[in-house]
Amino acid sequence: MQSSDRARPLRVGVVGLGRLGRRHAQNLAYRVPGATLAAACSPLEDDLTWARSALPETQLYNDYAQLLADDTLDAVWLVTPSSLHAQQIVDALHAGKHVFCEKPLSLDVAECQRVVEESRRFPAQQVTIGFMRRFDPSYHDAFEKVREGKIGRPFLVRSQNCDLNDPDGFFVRFAPTSGGIFLDCTVHDIDVARWLLGKPRATRVFAAGAVALHEGLRESGDVDNGVAICEFEGGKLAMFYASRTMAHGNDASSEVIGTAGALAIGRVPRMNRVEIYDAHGVRSECTPTFFERFEEAFLIEAQAFVAAVRARLDGAAGDAGQGASLEDALEATRIGYALRQSLQTGQAVTL
Amino acid sequence: MQSSDRARPLRVGVVGLGRLGRRHAQNLAYRVPGATLAAACSPLEDDLTWARSALPETQLYNDYAQLLADDTLDAVWLVTPSSLHAQQIVDALHAGKHVFCEKPLSLDVAECQRVVEESRRFPAQQVTIGFMRRFDPSYHDAFEKVREGKIGRPFLVRSQNCDLNDPDGFFVRFAPTSGGIFLDCTVHDIDVARWLLGKPRATRVFAAGAVALHEGLRESGDVDNGVAICEFEGGKLAMFYASRTMAHGNDASSEVIGTAGALAIGRVPRMNRVEIYDAHGVRSECTPTFFERFEEAFLIEAQAFVAAVRARLDGAAGDAGQGASLEDALEATRIGYALRQSLQTGQAVTL
Amino acid sequence: MQSSDRARPLRVGVVGLGRLGRRHAQNLAYRVPGATLAAACSPLEDDLTWARSALPETQLYNDYAQLLADDTLDAVWLVTPSSLHAQQIVDALHAGKHVFCEKPLSLDVAECQRVVEESRRFPAQQVTIGFMRRFDPSYHDAFEKVREGKIGRPFLVRSQNCDLNDPDGFFVRFAPTSGGIFLDCTVHDIDVARWLLGKPRATRVFAAGAVALHEGLRESGDVDNGVAICEFEGGKLAMFYASRTMAHGNDASSEVIGTAGALAIGRVPRMNRVEIYDAHGVRSECTPTFFERFEEAFLIEAQAFVAAVRARLDGAAGDAGQGASLEDALEATRIGYALRQSLQTGQAVTL
Amino acid sequence: MQSSDRARPLRVGVVGLGRLGRRHAQNLAYRVPGATLAAACSPLEDDLTWARSALPETQLYNDYAQLLADDTLDAVWLVTPSSLHAQQIVDALHAGKHVFCEKPLSLDVAECQRVVEESRRFPAQQVTIGFMRRFDPSYHDAFEKVREGKIGRPFLVRSQNCDLNDPDGFFVRFAPTSGGIFLDCTVHDIDVARWLLGKPRATRVFAAGAVALHEGLRESGDVDNGVAICEFEGGKLAMFYASRTMAHGNDASSEVIGTAGALAIGRVPRMNRVEIYDAHGVRSECTPTFFERFEEAFLIEAQAFVAAVRARLDGAAGDAGQGASLEDALEATRIGYALRQSLQTGQAVTL
Repeated sequence: MQSSDRARPLRVGVVGLGRLGRRHAQNLAYRVPGATLAAACSPLEDDLTWARSALPETQLYNDYAQLLADDTLDAVWLVTPSSLHAQQIVDALHAGKHVFCEKPLSLDVAECQRVVEESRRFPAQQVTIGFMRRFDPSYHDAFEKVREGKIGRPFLVRSQNCDLNDPDGFFVRFAPTSGGIFLDCTVHDIDVARWLLGKPRATRVFAAGAVALHEGLRESGDVDNGVAICEFEGGKLAMFYASRTMAHGNDASSEVIGTAGALAIGRVPRMNRVEIYDAHGVRSECTPTFFERFEEAFLIEAQAFVAAVRARLDGAAGDAGQGASLEDALEATRIGYALRQSLQTGQAVTL
Repeated sequence: MQSSDRARPLRVGVVGLGRLGRRHAQNLAYRVPGATLAAACSPLEDDLTWARSALPETQLYNDYAQLLADDTLDAVWLVTPSSLHAQQIVDALHAGKHVFCEKPLSLDVAECQRVVEESRRFPAQQVTIGFMRRFDPSYHDAFEKVREGKIGRPFLVRSQNCDLNDPDGFFVRFAPTSGGIFLDCTVHDIDVARWLLGKPRATRVFAAGAVALHEGLRESGDVDNGVAICEFEGGKLAMFYASRTMAHGNDASSEVIGTAGALAIGRVPRMNRVEIYDAHGVRSECTPTFFERFEEAFLIEAQAFVAAVRARLDGAAGDAGQGASLEDALEATRIGYALRQSLQTGQAVTL
Repeated sequence: MQSSDRARPLRVGVVGLGRLGRRHAQNLAYRVPGATLAAACSPLEDDLTWARSALPETQLYNDYAQLLADDTLDAVWLVTPSSLHAQQIVDALHAGKHVFCEKPLSLDVAECQRVVEESRRFPAQQVTIGFMRRFDPSYHDAFEKVREGKIGRPFLVRSQNCDLNDPDGFFVRFAPTSGGIFLDCTVHDIDVARWLLGKPRATRVFAAGAVALHEGLRESGDVDNGVAICEFEGGKLAMFYASRTMAHGNDASSEVIGTAGALAIGRVPRMNRVEIYDAHGVRSECTPTFFERFEEAFLIEAQAFVAAVRARLDGAAGDAGQGASLEDALEATRIGYALRQSLQTGQAVTL
Repeated sequence: MQSSDRARPLRVGVVGLGRLGRRHAQNLAYRVPGATLAAACSPLEDDLTWARSALPETQLYNDYAQLLADDTLDAVWLVTPSSLHAQQIVDALHAGKHVFCEKPLSLDVAECQRVVEESRRFPAQQVTIGFMRRFDPSYHDAFEKVREGKIGRPFLVRSQNCDLNDPDGFFVRFAPTSGGIFLDCTVHDIDVARWLLGKPRATRVFAAGAVALHEGLRESGDVDNGVAICEFEGGKLAMFYASRTMAHGNDASSEVIGTAGALAIGRVPRMNRVEIYDAHGVRSECTPTFFERFEEAFLIEAQAFVAAVRARLDGAAGDAGQGASLEDALEATRIGYALRQSLQTGQAVTL
């Protein structure tokens, strides 16, 4: 909390009010000092009804263009379908807004590149892509320890993004447009690996997969369990695992291995600090979804974005801060796309 | 978040701006929907200077009586020296305010009783004592599991409150007025035990202690490590441990044992989800102080108090909710006082 | 393995072939270099039948006096009912045998003292009481770390002996002669505490208990859950917990706290290194009985006894080695007896 | 222990008395009921001197052919350099002996096949390759749980074999003949994966690696950290990690993931049940080498081999029991060899 907290708050408009959008909206409305949730936008009447009761006084829009035309807004916060992200970011930049956008930037590498190029024309505006693990206190602690040299030179990351099995297989219907398991889930791990290893570029990848439970995925060439290896320049490595079929909960964990030690983040996805001693043994219950696991990360992410924009407004040099830049998001898509190619061809893909 | 979040916010005045007072003030200012931090009070100019820069527009007072006279305030939040709590609560009730007060209610049993009696004249006003563990998500989860019968009938609680050793021994200078280790530290465990066991009354206690490092405590008849047993009506039991000399961090943990299972809360006081693999083995770093350990609890506690008062204002029947009532605080002091007696006499004390 | 392994092996006779006796017999028969299981004794034909098939060529006796008369035996190994221990040890000493005897030495303090005095007449003969935790690799590691000063000066031990609930309540029928929960179970913890704290003498104890499930215990003044505090000379302390009603397994754990750190032994009574990830969360299965938990300790204990006797035979000065001496066993009974007194009177007992 | 323990013991000759050979020799001499260590063989005088003092009466040989000519021996136990294994197994079969041989069977796939074919001519003789993890109680427990369907259908294994860094880099000098990290270390993981997944054949592999610390490995095309993916028939998968540069100890762990749950074996390579609470946090010390980690496995492996041979002698149908057959060892070498190829070419290798 600095004196600037008393300065004019940053006025933010949230776009998209699905489950995650609502979480972001409430964080911005009630829990981010220095920000005001000034507008919210959704084409769905249900979402707007929710906004009227759950959010403080907020200008409501059902059209993104109208929201962009609202001159009182400093920033937009995009929690819209992935296919809209790229164009919405460009539009927001043209409208003079700072932009926070949920991952992924785009499933299409060329489109990612277009946004990166376009954004270079607006150097005064902040654009951050929502790889929220960077803001999770444990991931952040690991990042700091790596930076301080506590594990020597880091050279290998193992990272996974595993979801509790959804017997209804909602994601199966979503498969034709999700980009597949690597672009949908592993992008988080790709970003974590590059972030912890010093942002190297990938040079070669290999991926394989299995359909353990959801046969419907075969139609779209997707799998419900995927494994991958990624080689980076400088002899660095990553191993990835993604699953849609876990029995115990959402299990997002990572490990960074260096020449003098290793750090594991979230080895047991324990819900809290309670251990149960009963006929099953001694156990910890697990976080069911990424919502419970990364609740705090979503909040800190919002606080960090607002702080970064306000630092710019106070005259600081702009940078992505701890958050992921458009370039990071481009590289994540580039690697994720290559993993999909490798899965489909059975061959290693050189980047 | 309900529609009432849009109603007039509860106006709260924080009294006392030491380390913990500042934490409460910031929570109320920025993180508690439905509340406005409308005033802050401290006799120290340094505290008020801090308030001017770190808090939003807030009426500042250096005198408690003046703050009580402020008719725009609905509630006071007392984070003052323990010896002042009892009288300040009574004064606030007479001034028509709802009251949150940090533990302990008082080190004197008779004084506790006086406050309890006085408070009965003000049934429309909420008074909650700050036993924050009840609001820690893990403690709360354990409480719910006990209530749902997951461990059968609970009959034994083991609970500890252990602090990282302070080589400077600040608390040694504080010893003559702290009430001793049981009234200062173990009150939290006493409250946890009663809360998890269904609020039984104590029938007999025994305590013993050791001076491991801080010889200066002997003068005031205090110890830096204390152990105790408490028998409750209905054949229930508790074991307590308090220490000022831990090498690894603040270690506040509890265990509740029932006829069909047991729950342990906080067995390893891990700082976060990171594990370090290095020449020391595999390890978790620990929470250094109760501030890190109970950061979330302090926030949820404030949210719950505000919600409880607002529910009253909306016409709900008043109750202490999940928080500790004056009666709970009285019983905690009664037991803590008996533990001190037992420590000093070497005999079991019957209550 | 030293050259002496080729010397004449120590000839041992096991007395008592119940469940634990059979374990000892097989260890001595097959897994203890330097020892020969030369004889076994039981009044029960079933036991002898078992011995004929499961043990190697062994002289079988149904009478202890006859076994003692067997001049080819160097040592006896007593796994008989507790009430027989004291006299059988004395008889074995008179017969010129070294003695290993399962705990407890006796439930009667005076009888313990008699054995101690009698044994002083036979200084050349080894007598060890079977507190097997001392030989568990983890307990032993903790002991060594304490001895090396790794945790500074140790001043507090917390130790527990908790059994999986036996719905049939076998031990209820055994209660009138078991000595009660403290003499039957807590003696192990008493011995552990004294061993880790440098063998201090107790000065005062207090105990309390609860009948959680087995109402039949009330008749004999016993409880199925007991808690206790023990003060030792020099300001050292111990807290004990014993239970017959655990849902998760045999949970024998201890903790030793020093001025520079603490060691916990067996915090989670995990069966092995497997963790299960399923709908219950992440869990470890637990050791069901002390047999699984202390399997290795029983073996190492036998190897250590044999090594100690052989060292004597090779001319080394006799000592109890790592094992518990008769004096240790006397002190354990003295404290256990005082705990029972305290439980029954509700008062602290000064020793 | 069955009655057959009284039958004539199996007479075993150990060949090779290096560090691991000595361990096997002592197990067979003192800890395996039903076996007699009847002979030991080494070309090194030092080894034979050790045998004279540390082993019981044993016939000593400095020549393998002489040992094979010893008609009193039933079985040979080969702990010799890897390059000798294949021929020594064949010679032993021709000499009428049962064979236990340390892994690997051979670094050469064709040679493995030759041994497999030759062995088919001696169906009455047991040949087991020493993949000792199968006998580790935790691995065995996981195997049984998989077999009982506890995790549904297993489809993915993640397994690693990581060694404490040896600053002297002994293995660097050994690199030209070791076969590389995958044939030397990962064979264990390959065998574990196939064993837990129902012994499927591999169809495609990809490997990558890094030289983190030991630059000298580059000369022989080896790495000190290797990662790999292996696809099996039936859509099953494995991920492997091998390292020579761990800071915390020997870390051999595995995970098997099924459609209804997962099992992790040895996630934290804790030395024992002690946890240390000090200024470093809360930690477990780790097993420094595979000797400490698999001490029990080596013993159980020997007991199982002896039991399997004796069952044959008693007329049971011969099988490999729980141990690895020559066919298993051939498949492990085939996969390990393909991993090396993939590492060197950067391409996926189809089998």
